[in-house]
Amino acid sequence: MSDNLVEITIKQVNAILSEAGVVAKTGRTRPDVGRVPENASVSGLIDHTLLRADAMAREIEMLCFEAKEFGFASVCVNSWYVPLVAELLKDSEVTICVVVGFPLGASLPQVTAYEAQEAINAGAREIDMVIPVGAIKSRDIVGAFNDVTDVATVCHDHPDEVICKVIIETALLTEPEKVIACQIAKQAGADFVKTSTGFSSGGATVENVALMRQVVGNGVGVEASGDIETLSQAQAMINAGANRIGTRSSVYIAQEEQRQEN
Amino acid sequence: MSDNLVEITIKQVNAILSEAGVVAKTGRTRPDVGRVPENASVSGLIDHTLLRADAMAREIEMLCFEAKEFGFASVCVNSWYVPLVAELLKDSEVTICVVVGFPLGASLPQVTAYEAQEAINAGAREIDMVIPVGAIKSRDIVGAFNDVTDVATVCHDHPDEVICKVIIETALLTEPEKVIACQIAKQAGADFVKTSTGFSSGGATVENVALMRQVVGNGVGVEASGDIETLSQAQAMINAGANRIGTRSSVYIAQEEQRQEN
Repeated sequence: MSDNLVEITIKQVNAILSEAGVVAKTGRTRPDVGRVPENASVSGLIDHTLLRADAMAREIEMLCFEAKEFGFASVCVNSWYVPLVAELLKDSEVTICVVVGFPLGASLPQVTAYEAQEAINAGAREIDMVIPVGAIKSRDIVGAFNDVTDVATVCHDHPDEVICKVIIETALLTEPEKVIACQIAKQAGADFVKTSTGFSSGGATVENVALMRQVVGNGVGVEASGDIETLSQAQAMINAGANRIGTRSSVYIAQEEQRQEN
Repeated sequence: MSDNLVEITIKQVNAILSEAGVVAKTGRTRPDVGRVPENASVSGLIDHTLLRADAMAREIEMLCFEAKEFGFASVCVNSWYVPLVAELLKDSEVTICVVVGFPLGASLPQVTAYEAQEAINAGAREIDMVIPVGAIKSRDIVGAFNDVTDVATVCHDHPDEVICKVIIETALLTEPEKVIACQIAKQAGADFVKTSTGFSSGGATVENVALMRQVVGNGVGVEASGDIETLSQAQAMINAGANRIGTRSSVYIAQEEQRQEN
């Protein structure tokens, strides 16, 4: 997609939102959220993720143990397991990341916002929502914007300034739709855009990461997620503009990184 | 699975619930919910279903048009689209069926119950929840029971006696786990058990339908869903004990049935 076409698409989204009289969020309180911290390891950028429907409590326990052991940024789980994870991680530095309205992004907006609120009340400090893909496809720009705004507001109203990530599910979107979804997320106050749920065929690509970074600029984070299984894949995503990695292969990647350091 | 082992498993579930002091629901107010109505057509038993994340508004409009045209039992959609569907079906006989906590069955219990309540407020008269698969796998019998109970209570407290269906996601469960899930659903007051979300590999089978009917008896409905694409497949499910069919191939099946009648 040409830079020119990206710019035109961004302007169109802004014009639609402006015409609808909805107010874009400004004054994000975490200006560092879009950058890779200095001297960060790849492991320290990883959301250690387990989202299968049939994930057992003992697998979640292992996930939390591994996150502490390897110093991952967060564990990422479904909201059912937040109380368990909050108990397991209460004395650790590992952040609790919880997916909401997941993986379809097709729940009523008030339900997704409520799930975010309840997950935060139970201990989540990052919320990963899915952009309403059907709304993007139907060009319901304002509907999608309001959906993200509601969740971002719940996150940012919390004293801990909970991080709001928006999964745009690149595998289901055309190139212009990826730009539209990223611009909506940015304008609605999201702290991160994220490539994939892991539940559609097709995960993160360097092309998508680069496009997303182009749209959101340096004030918003970009997370590459889905089908990232090796250290070199993770590094390629970071080189393309990602500053967070979502994966189930975290332990393998961390061990590769340890071997490189030795 | 032998009849004897099915009986033993049912007794184990009942013993665990009884020991936990949780009260099984009795006095279901829709005694006919488990049966195929006399002279019913296959088409009249179909949930006309569109649950893809990227389903567009105009596809939902087509879904509702087709449901009226062919006399399907319901349209089955994600909660995002309930307001649209309620508008489109307001003067029709077609029931609005909405999935909640879908497709992972891994949301916090209060979130799934809230999604059911909000969907009902917007016009849903059937709610399809997913059993918490991870809880079944972890043998958290009481947790799964409470999750279903909360949603069933929201449904049955409504003056229209909204129907509560529980998807047990057979593709992810062992034989004993299928029995456990069905017995929990029955004891928690579900009106239907349903084979599949359509989002795991493996859909309805006659063996699973027969097993589910064996567990829940004739007072609870059994819905076969997932990978049903022809009239003969639908009829095989009904012969095995199903009294509802969930499919995306509804129009094709209805046209096959019309040709048979002529």
